[in-house]
Amino acid sequence: MVVQLERSVEVYTTTKSTPENMMYTYSFDSLPLQRGGQLGPVTLAYETWGTLNAEGNNAILITHALTGTSHAHDVEHPDDPKAAWWNPLIGPGRPFDTSRYFVICSNIIGGCAGSTGPSSINPRTGYPYAMRFPVITIRDMVRAQRRLIEHLGVKRLAMVAGGSIGGQQALEWAVTYPELVEKVVVVAATAALTAQAVAFSEVERQAIMADPRWKDGNYAPGEGPTTGLAIARMLAMITYQSEEAMELRFARNPADDCRRTGVSSPSRYPDLGTRFDVENYLYYQGQSLVQRFDANSFLYVSRAMDLYDVSEDYPSLDAALRRLRSRALFVGIRSDFLFPAAHVRWLAEKARSVGGDARYVELDSPHGHDAFLKEWDQMTAVLSQF
Amino acid sequence: MVVQLERSVEVYTTTKSTPENMMYTYSFDSLPLQRGGQLGPVTLAYETWGTLNAEGNNAILITHALTGTSHAHDVEHPDDPKAAWWNPLIGPGRPFDTSRYFVICSNIIGGCAGSTGPSSINPRTGYPYAMRFPVITIRDMVRAQRRLIEHLGVKRLAMVAGGSIGGQQALEWAVTYPELVEKVVVVAATAALTAQAVAFSEVERQAIMADPRWKDGNYAPGEGPTTGLAIARMLAMITYQSEEAMELRFARNPADDCRRTGVSSPSRYPDLGTRFDVENYLYYQGQSLVQRFDANSFLYVSRAMDLYDVSEDYPSLDAALRRLRSRALFVGIRSDFLFPAAHVRWLAEKARSVGGDARYVELDSPHGHDAFLKEWDQMTAVLSQF
Repeated sequence: MVVQLERSVEVYTTTKSTPENMMYTYSFDSLPLQRGGQLGPVTLAYETWGTLNAEGNNAILITHALTGTSHAHDVEHPDDPKAAWWNPLIGPGRPFDTSRYFVICSNIIGGCAGSTGPSSINPRTGYPYAMRFPVITIRDMVRAQRRLIEHLGVKRLAMVAGGSIGGQQALEWAVTYPELVEKVVVVAATAALTAQAVAFSEVERQAIMADPRWKDGNYAPGEGPTTGLAIARMLAMITYQSEEAMELRFARNPADDCRRTGVSSPSRYPDLGTRFDVENYLYYQGQSLVQRFDANSFLYVSRAMDLYDVSEDYPSLDAALRRLRSRALFVGIRSDFLFPAAHVRWLAEKARSVGGDARYVELDSPHGHDAFLKEWDQMTAVLSQF
Repeated sequence: MVVQLERSVEVYTTTKSTPENMMYTYSFDSLPLQRGGQLGPVTLAYETWGTLNAEGNNAILITHALTGTSHAHDVEHPDDPKAAWWNPLIGPGRPFDTSRYFVICSNIIGGCAGSTGPSSINPRTGYPYAMRFPVITIRDMVRAQRRLIEHLGVKRLAMVAGGSIGGQQALEWAVTYPELVEKVVVVAATAALTAQAVAFSEVERQAIMADPRWKDGNYAPGEGPTTGLAIARMLAMITYQSEEAMELRFARNPADDCRRTGVSSPSRYPDLGTRFDVENYLYYQGQSLVQRFDANSFLYVSRAMDLYDVSEDYPSLDAALRRLRSRALFVGIRSDFLFPAAHVRWLAEKARSVGGDARYVELDSPHGHDAFLKEWDQMTAVLSQF
């Protein structure tokens, strides 16, 4: 049974269907969940570029990160890196070559850009799920994506590729459905988060849940915990960058008057002495996110990231990795401290040690975790050689 | 003029005078401030161990970190590392040898353990200063300490030593009053914070100021922004440790029931799935701090840390360092990411390059910034050889 649901999340959706950039939705009745219970009906918002071949085996699935959307590529503005999150990598003649491949990107479940998430209407109550949304995992996201690619007529994925939480999804695809994935690209993701990364995540979530406007998750659309979410985003942005990158860009420069215009801190309290440029930048990043992202989605998706452990439900990590049948590329980032390059490399070596066809490449970038959204030349070179 | 003020900060003071551990106060009328204006009257709470010699030149000044107090040593429990913050380093036969030296530690201005800070009564209004407390700097803290040591009859300091913000104070002592400092030990502190460290600080402050109980700083004693302060402390604790140390201690272990007893998150919202041990630990640390520390003090002292730049008011960093006359020991910590070891080493080399008697030693510790409060054997060895 396919149920077409009205989307309740338009308020957060920056990904809008236009004649040039078509966003579609696919809905199905129910998804059993890894941690118990089920979610349903489930809607996935997705975009595609290129054409599926008759054999159904030229599809590439692109998986997005925490606050991402299905809009990985922008047909109207293909040369603007800011128009879509992996824009420079997708298109005719690019690494994800739309003249040869059928490229798919769907908003993850738990998200807020068209797919079912905490801001969606719970059919059992008629109100948004909010914190009655079930705990979801990376595997649940992947299982939902599998339903989508079947619906689209894909028989086997030529590739799954993603960074950060998207990299966790790519890895999970290759372990859960080894027979369906020819190649996998895992960028800036590891077998499981470090304690430090979980700790940062939890501070972010606490900032959201401590905001009185959060109301145990039961805020009305447009009346959410913008202060808490902005603070969470400020911290997240630090963890997506690096000491080196921040020093290069901001050092100890004070914010100039021009840049400060219209930018205020989440708490809206005046500066205590100097305002540093790095602070102003973080305020701006916080302000930007609250306009496009749902606070409850942040809680659920960041929690899925924390909970991810590729070995879950298997006797061991080796046992999980022994399932791999895909050609696998693991990409670490030198300056990433959220998903340290050494851990990505270790995972690649572990996969190889149990017989996997796994290789490791490292981006030599100062930009930290976010380098996979910035280092277009290196990403292009790495992907083109795979 | 010396004014004896009633202390308004008893509520936060874990440092209490007892017959064994005597805490004293010294007050003076006014302190001109580096960033303009003045503070007055000023009270400093302090403790001393050992005896000042007739020449007044055997004093060691110990300078504390953000949430520290004057209680660096506990006479009643000299062998309990938890009884005072540098307890194992102070006492007869220890690096800060109280049988030979007169050891002094005072609570910094801006603090809340007996010295004048935002929770003190503003004599002009009869209410706590709160956010009418002026912006203070590390140099202001040092100038206040100078008044104290003069009061105590100290002619010249045999040593100034501290870590973190205490290390900034030690460095500032040696630059501001070169003729008064024979030796200086700067532990886990640099010429100025990195952009990343400022960014973390600001997220912490925003968490405090976003708490509605903060009330622009005008909370009644005991009714402060405990949620925001606990979240700030959670983040600060991450920055005081390291990825390596957290992995060693917590990895991805779930919190066991026994450890969870009585520990709830700052937002008091139930766990979203698993509670990790690292989360439980951070909740506990947050809960602990709010019972002993004033939120406005956190804002002012962390801001002083951010603003610190040893070259301020000098033509250049070289010019500032050329003032050094002390024998200087810089101590970096291998795993410190708040004050990276490479920056501490760089500063030591810079000091030496302009003619200073500066050396660098590195603690080989996984414990991150906080290693200077944990690695007793290494700290003892390093200090004893200096």
